[in-house]
Amino acid sequence: MEYLRVSEAQRVVLESVALLNAESVGLEHSLGRVLAEDIRANRDLPPYDVSAMDGYAVRSADLVQVPVTLEVIEDIKAGDMPSKIVQPGQCARIMTGAPLPQGADAVMRVEDTQEISTQLIQVVTTIKDGHDVRPQGENMRNGDVVLSAGTEITPGVIGILATVKITQMQVYRRPRVAILSTGNELEAINAPVDMNKIPDSNTYALMAQVQALGITPALLGIARDDPLELERYLRLGLEYDVLLVSGGTSVGVHDYVRPTIEKLGVSMKFWRVAMKPGHPLAFGVLHGAAAGEEAKQRDAFVFGLPGNPVSSMVCFEEFVAPSLRRMMGHARLFRRTVSARLAHPLKMRPGRTEFVRVQLTHDDAGYVASSTGTQSSGVLLSMARADGLLVMPSDSTGLAAGAQVTVQLLDGTAYQHETNIRE
Amino acid sequence: MEYLRVSEAQRVVLESVALLNAESVGLEHSLGRVLAEDIRANRDLPPYDVSAMDGYAVRSADLVQVPVTLEVIEDIKAGDMPSKIVQPGQCARIMTGAPLPQGADAVMRVEDTQEISTQLIQVVTTIKDGHDVRPQGENMRNGDVVLSAGTEITPGVIGILATVKITQMQVYRRPRVAILSTGNELEAINAPVDMNKIPDSNTYALMAQVQALGITPALLGIARDDPLELERYLRLGLEYDVLLVSGGTSVGVHDYVRPTIEKLGVSMKFWRVAMKPGHPLAFGVLHGAAAGEEAKQRDAFVFGLPGNPVSSMVCFEEFVAPSLRRMMGHARLFRRTVSARLAHPLKMRPGRTEFVRVQLTHDDAGYVASSTGTQSSGVLLSMARADGLLVMPSDSTGLAAGAQVTVQLLDGTAYQHETNIRE
Repeated sequence: MEYLRVSEAQRVVLESVALLNAESVGLEHSLGRVLAEDIRANRDLPPYDVSAMDGYAVRSADLVQVPVTLEVIEDIKAGDMPSKIVQPGQCARIMTGAPLPQGADAVMRVEDTQEISTQLIQVVTTIKDGHDVRPQGENMRNGDVVLSAGTEITPGVIGILATVKITQMQVYRRPRVAILSTGNELEAINAPVDMNKIPDSNTYALMAQVQALGITPALLGIARDDPLELERYLRLGLEYDVLLVSGGTSVGVHDYVRPTIEKLGVSMKFWRVAMKPGHPLAFGVLHGAAAGEEAKQRDAFVFGLPGNPVSSMVCFEEFVAPSLRRMMGHARLFRRTVSARLAHPLKMRPGRTEFVRVQLTHDDAGYVASSTGTQSSGVLLSMARADGLLVMPSDSTGLAAGAQVTVQLLDGTAYQHETNIRE
Repeated sequence: MEYLRVSEAQRVVLESVALLNAESVGLEHSLGRVLAEDIRANRDLPPYDVSAMDGYAVRSADLVQVPVTLEVIEDIKAGDMPSKIVQPGQCARIMTGAPLPQGADAVMRVEDTQEISTQLIQVVTTIKDGHDVRPQGENMRNGDVVLSAGTEITPGVIGILATVKITQMQVYRRPRVAILSTGNELEAINAPVDMNKIPDSNTYALMAQVQALGITPALLGIARDDPLELERYLRLGLEYDVLLVSGGTSVGVHDYVRPTIEKLGVSMKFWRVAMKPGHPLAFGVLHGAAAGEEAKQRDAFVFGLPGNPVSSMVCFEEFVAPSLRRMMGHARLFRRTVSARLAHPLKMRPGRTEFVRVQLTHDDAGYVASSTGTQSSGVLLSMARADGLLVMPSDSTGLAAGAQVTVQLLDGTAYQHETNIRE
């Protein structure tokens, strides 16, 4: 079987997975989920024309010639209703958010007026009809869809849900994810130190990558290189929506994982992708028993990830995370990219798309990317130090210092050291 | 009191807050926290020279003249120890991660060899000493600090913690945050719809912004414009590390919040920042009873946020989030920025730094920013739709279409629709 290109492998994976069914969740637990229903406004907002400023509700026609003195007939706070009609030569003191009284059609900011007495103000500037007035329904109109199914629930969206008083809503459920490490050479985290073994870091790095997507994975532990033990673990793992198996998918002679997975009914879609680090990467589907869309929701997916910790993490970012996000209803599947200048030359052997771990700094001309040092896929520190993955096209033979490159941001939360803004 | 510039106000806030004390947390709950202790390696990794490939452990001196036929004396799997010494003319079949046997100094990939029989292989290429060998201690050396205090716990860091078998660690604790809305005009989420009231969205949008930082805030509810009720709520809020009060800090006559806060012993640092949206924004400190650094940890901080939902959210991003992140030990305090081209002209009245809600698209030349439409601070939908905040310098009078601008990314998770990579 030939090597798939990264984009082809992504396409295969994303065409295989399907949106999961919906479940109900409370507003306080909805951040980061995706709406599975349309949300409609339950009133006009604002419910009537309101003031956008602290000031005076005026008749703009009164201000054609200024200066002019106006009589203050009333004090309208937010939450109050006006009790009087503003007649020519009159105005009402009004707070931000308070309803505009009848007769008035504009608001004059308090800063642009002069108080002559508690009953009289002087205005020296003219304003137009509607000035500093927020018209009825500017935010939302009763019955309109304000949020449609498929919307990711961000803090701003939660503000809108609260505005229309939704305390419980339908969202796509999260996939159930199991993580399995394989190999006699692995040492469990709670086992005593054995110099001849390799500590199992993949289980926990993958756990954290899954957690970063808002999912709590099940950690199945370590399966030894024994066909029966492996089969028992894999069978258990296939009861989840997604099973991540790290190690054991190499071309080596001691590889039991692939045949065992296939024996359990998993149809393997690919097991080689032309990327570095990342080889070998396998993907398979265990088709559900039901028919139609329902069946797709019952499919189980297996990712065979490399045993190398960096390779495993990079494959997760490029293939697993987009799949899990699609299952949860997200439209944004891939890491955000930024453009950066390369700080130093980079050599490359063409043939595979290369993901180079880089740190980003910022200067007047924008981002500067520098390699985190050794790109050996065994050196997890390079991943821990990385701000992003510089993507080297597979036909590249290398880049000179100063070349423009694309970097996928690895930040879970997209913060940076400095504001980098000119104000 | 004059208006502070955004950067000045940020400086005041960040100089006031201090790192909180440490607490113990388990590996499975550590993602996103910041280490409060150095972490050391508990062994050399790899513990000896190991193979970086599936192949044959060879003596590079044997390969000076090729082709050459070598005798296979042993099979070394990952997790096995070699039992024989590789003599001239010999090699050992070796798996990725398995220890290099004595005598061998390089690894020949299986792809570059030809099997003549199970005991004999032919090699046609030469390799140098150390080729495809990962030397002992390449990843980490026993006793070395592999992660220092102040490191943010990312998935890569969790992989390293698992590697050195840390299941419990010291991290800076999270601030306890309380959220209070104020104003007679506000309608609680569980109250019946009253057309004359404004639904309280700020409590929930702020809740979500706090949650996005990994903190579960306490929601104190709505305090009415009554001095005694307000004092009771504020007193309760000041028992937390950080109190966010939205509404009630305007220059209007119905403002009880500022005097009540000051009466409770809070020293107000500023209440006006030259930004839009965002005005008015107040910040104060209630100094703790103890002395020295300990005292700083017991200080309580009050942010008086605008009642307008968009203004409140923008102020949170620019001032509150950086403060909360600093208290938790983060070095990265501010939203990551990207450079973008403006899709359309933008007019501006100079004098205040303006944060324009924009959507980002991507074309061959990079990011393109377009306004989400109305920038009225009452229209929360504009915030829900925004990918970022375009920062307009306070001395700007406007920008033409095509101008390069800086956009702060609002994504909690930094994903995008397309990979935008050329492979």
